[in-house]
Amino acid sequence: MTVRVGVVGGGQLARMMIAPAVELGVEIRVLAEEPGMSAALAATAVGDYRDIETVRAFAKDVDVLTFDHEHVPQDVLRALIADGVAVHPGPDALQYAQDKLAMRRKVAELGLPQPDWAEVADAEALGAFLASHGSRAVVKTPRGGYDGKGVRVVGAATDADDWFAALAEDGRGGALLVEELVDFDRELAAQVARRPSGELVAYPVVETVQRGGVCAEVVAPAAGLAPEVAAEATRIATGVAHGVGVTGMLAVELFATASGRVLVNEFAMRPHNSGHWTQDGAVTSQFEQHLRAVLDLPLGDTAARAPWTVMINVLGGPVAGSLDERFAAAMAAHPDAKVHAYGKAPRPGRKVGHVNVSGSDLDAVRADAAAAASFFLD
Amino acid sequence: MTVRVGVVGGGQLARMMIAPAVELGVEIRVLAEEPGMSAALAATAVGDYRDIETVRAFAKDVDVLTFDHEHVPQDVLRALIADGVAVHPGPDALQYAQDKLAMRRKVAELGLPQPDWAEVADAEALGAFLASHGSRAVVKTPRGGYDGKGVRVVGAATDADDWFAALAEDGRGGALLVEELVDFDRELAAQVARRPSGELVAYPVVETVQRGGVCAEVVAPAAGLAPEVAAEATRIATGVAHGVGVTGMLAVELFATASGRVLVNEFAMRPHNSGHWTQDGAVTSQFEQHLRAVLDLPLGDTAARAPWTVMINVLGGPVAGSLDERFAAAMAAHPDAKVHAYGKAPRPGRKVGHVNVSGSDLDAVRADAAAAASFFLD
Repeated sequence: MTVRVGVVGGGQLARMMIAPAVELGVEIRVLAEEPGMSAALAATAVGDYRDIETVRAFAKDVDVLTFDHEHVPQDVLRALIADGVAVHPGPDALQYAQDKLAMRRKVAELGLPQPDWAEVADAEALGAFLASHGSRAVVKTPRGGYDGKGVRVVGAATDADDWFAALAEDGRGGALLVEELVDFDRELAAQVARRPSGELVAYPVVETVQRGGVCAEVVAPAAGLAPEVAAEATRIATGVAHGVGVTGMLAVELFATASGRVLVNEFAMRPHNSGHWTQDGAVTSQFEQHLRAVLDLPLGDTAARAPWTVMINVLGGPVAGSLDERFAAAMAAHPDAKVHAYGKAPRPGRKVGHVNVSGSDLDAVRADAAAAASFFLD
Repeated sequence: MTVRVGVVGGGQLARMMIAPAVELGVEIRVLAEEPGMSAALAATAVGDYRDIETVRAFAKDVDVLTFDHEHVPQDVLRALIADGVAVHPGPDALQYAQDKLAMRRKVAELGLPQPDWAEVADAEALGAFLASHGSRAVVKTPRGGYDGKGVRVVGAATDADDWFAALAEDGRGGALLVEELVDFDRELAAQVARRPSGELVAYPVVETVQRGGVCAEVVAPAAGLAPEVAAEATRIATGVAHGVGVTGMLAVELFATASGRVLVNEFAMRPHNSGHWTQDGAVTSQFEQHLRAVLDLPLGDTAARAPWTVMINVLGGPVAGSLDERFAAAMAAHPDAKVHAYGKAPRPGRKVGHVNVSGSDLDAVRADAAAAASFFLD
């Protein structure tokens, strides 16, 4: 009696669940947005995840429904629950990954540290926040942002007028989120997995390096991190996971300040780019762990396999030579590098794969990973 | 332009190529013997691998053809080559994995050490071999044996009369292989991968523990192995790979004697049970390596990720509780154990999965692996 997990969304996160599903003996089925996506090998349906009948038909034959992304609408999720489908993470948790204002309210309610923030409905309110926060701030659209989209640094009350206008137009009213511009030293990510039964395991805290609003590099564990700061990051992620009732993987992106404070930036309720290092660098990868968690199976060991693992994202762009040729060249020069390809056509700035390198000397590992990834970049 | 690899055979070896194929960005297609086999997720065709038209139709849409097993007949392989299909390993190499007499002749020609052996066509010839080898020997059918089938220890000239009779009946004439009963200390396995271009890499030499003619446990690397014995095992495997022109993975099973000799027992031109430890214990798994080799891509690092990795096979039998329940119990008690399931219905003696455990203390690793596997055994 093979257990069946259904994944809504056919992107690379669904794709990277295929390998552990096969090894665990779990049947994986994917509802892809279109044919030929990253997770096409496991795609048993193609359709719109916003359409209840499409998702309902897909969910009918699976034991558990989970996600490649957090965009399935609440009404669809709640209709599935009403049908008796096991949905993990569930809508009560997912709302905080879908709406950044709801997230800020929840983090405040949980008493966990975060940047100063406010809900602002117009330029006047934004101006008031700016006036009390050094005349600079970050404005975010509560919904739909990712990889730096829907995020803007502002210095004047009128800098978000286009977004306010768009909100007014879409008729739902609504407001923007404004946050203080945190003077952080670096960015960390803390990942935990939580089962429906409540069992929770935490991964080593990592450092994420962003370039242009996109995760470029992850160092696991974060180098030179004071144990009490790592513990605080894990405490925050654990608090969020239990506090919102996440099932599956949770990644909490954090700002670490020079004074040792750790503040919640954002979170994601699924495998996350900050955890791709675990595929080769941890006993249990985040993709295997997510499957175990959503299936309510015992969770796996989160220990690192090596002192250091560095992950570098490969962004597609206009490059000379095909991706396959570059892949072969990277493999030839770096036999220890683990290149993970997403099966996506390259486009400028699009994540098409990543490289993991593990070892005992951080400088060597970083240099090796960067050199291997450089074959893909012009 | 995604590279496509076609695998003939839908067993667990094909199944375990799926995970690295996905991560490498290689499209994998499987010709399965029947629906619902281990590698069903990647099965794009079902049919008889002995039928040239079936295999030809399957091979039409792939860039490289490789195998889950060595049983595709020579005439089928040669017809594919004539069609222009890239077949790896090719028929010239595969013949030595298909016919144990051809293998013994080839190893002799290559000047590599092996047990005394003879081709015997009748009881008289077998009697003569027994008389000069202490009255005990091992008789093998040259074709079709695996996991202890087609292998028999004999003490009398008439002990193989039924096999001689069967050979006479099948009309191909043919003879049996008889080998001296080697008084070995333990069994080793040496694995190498070789590309069509000739590049070759070797894995650490492992110890294999057989029970009832079936591989039960693998310790990687073989404990307390003298460096010169390990080097000799690797020299033999390298000599076989270049000597027969293998492309892909080659596993050479070896007898190690108390006096330090190493003798060729058998070999397999595909990923092999003795290399399942590499999935979690080596930088590049044998399944990834096989794909890289047959696609003529640069080979990966064969280094171990941990000082010790122990693999234990899970054999299905009449057990209390479902396989899923046992799996969950094993995971709960051993969060560091990596359980690999083959998606096969349990039957007595049938390999349905395996467990890998890695660590720095061999006794602890062996005990942990055995304890995790014990959940599956009565």
